[in-house]
Amino acid sequence: MKLYSYFRSSAAYRVRIALNLKDIPYDIVPVHLLRDGGQQLSDNYTALNPSQLVPTLVDGDRAVAESVAIMEYLEETHPKPALLPKGAAARAHVRAMVQLIACDIHPLNNLRVLKYLKHDLQLDDAARDGWYRHWIALGLASLEAMLVRSALTGRFCCGDEPGMADACLVPQLFNARRMECDVSAFPTVLRIDAACAELDAFRKAAPSSQPDAEG
Amino acid sequence: MKLYSYFRSSAAYRVRIALNLKDIPYDIVPVHLLRDGGQQLSDNYTALNPSQLVPTLVDGDRAVAESVAIMEYLEETHPKPALLPKGAAARAHVRAMVQLIACDIHPLNNLRVLKYLKHDLQLDDAARDGWYRHWIALGLASLEAMLVRSALTGRFCCGDEPGMADACLVPQLFNARRMECDVSAFPTVLRIDAACAELDAFRKAAPSSQPDAEG
Repeated sequence: MKLYSYFRSSAAYRVRIALNLKDIPYDIVPVHLLRDGGQQLSDNYTALNPSQLVPTLVDGDRAVAESVAIMEYLEETHPKPALLPKGAAARAHVRAMVQLIACDIHPLNNLRVLKYLKHDLQLDDAARDGWYRHWIALGLASLEAMLVRSALTGRFCCGDEPGMADACLVPQLFNARRMECDVSAFPTVLRIDAACAELDAFRKAAPSSQPDAEG
Repeated sequence: MKLYSYFRSSAAYRVRIALNLKDIPYDIVPVHLLRDGGQQLSDNYTALNPSQLVPTLVDGDRAVAESVAIMEYLEETHPKPALLPKGAAARAHVRAMVQLIACDIHPLNNLRVLKYLKHDLQLDDAARDGWYRHWIALGLASLEAMLVRSALTGRFCCGDEPGMADACLVPQLFNARRMECDVSAFPTVLRIDAACAELDAFRKAAPSSQPDAEG
């Protein structure tokens, strides 16, 4: 498999974690989101993924877009180890946490959105930082509440094995720290992030471990 | 089942379509997003769904949040008729379209985001309309491209039976029209929307058909 990835993209980071957890070999094809005016906007990449967003997974002659769709695809094609629990209720709980991060937090802080706030809406740094931190704090508070109240929460987001929600939590928390958000109010999220950090699958997926990493 | 819903919420609209397509009986519990300062922010609703977003599906003693997680839950608990096709590649294609709408378009135009643009960032009507239309046009252009290039596209987003991607497409297009976006550049999206409009499952899910509908 080939993963079109950018080291700092948290959507690509999710998929790198999922591939590592399943021990699926893959090659990284770097797509630099800032260089050349944004390599994701090139004709070649657009032909692969009309949304012009990373990541894209290429498996043989199939190109799969959207990080959550890619993780579900990996779960169906490489079922073990499972990234979703057994039972419809537990699976719905994990998917709700995945969607909370992938829909309610991350899209508001995506590079293209921050660019629009800067260039089209002419917002200054303080207003953009405020925007970023507002949505991250709101979303992580919801995630913390979901984790605290659920009997399914264990060492990881669901039970004692890492899964799809953890693969979303860690990149989102990486982003939050990078933007200097105060995350101290989310102890359960922090505890799970620390548990993930002990695992090779997560460490090897980190931005700083990527072939296209920059300082 | 009970669905906590707001007639104009496009996330709730998706779930209403999915429930109708599967012919699952349900009661609507209206949550008015504007009245009482936003009923989704009430203690009672927050106890049910800490994200304070609609919809929430209650099935016996289970509460499921996030529209896409709810649709996947319904697919697992009520498999027929299927809203996802057979085969991992086709399922990934449908899920990519679902995520494109649910992550890349809709969250940027959610009520709470528009409120933040107005009250916190003090953007005027023109700037907010520009924002809204920008993300819808960009996202629908990607969706149109995905549909045009895929051999799986049929009368509906995937083949000749309606499914999960159609349940996302129709509410997004409803939103686009409501905000007076120009959708003429997306003929395949429009053709599929028209095909859906012929089906009772979609018609009964429409905002104007809801018990809490307003003029």
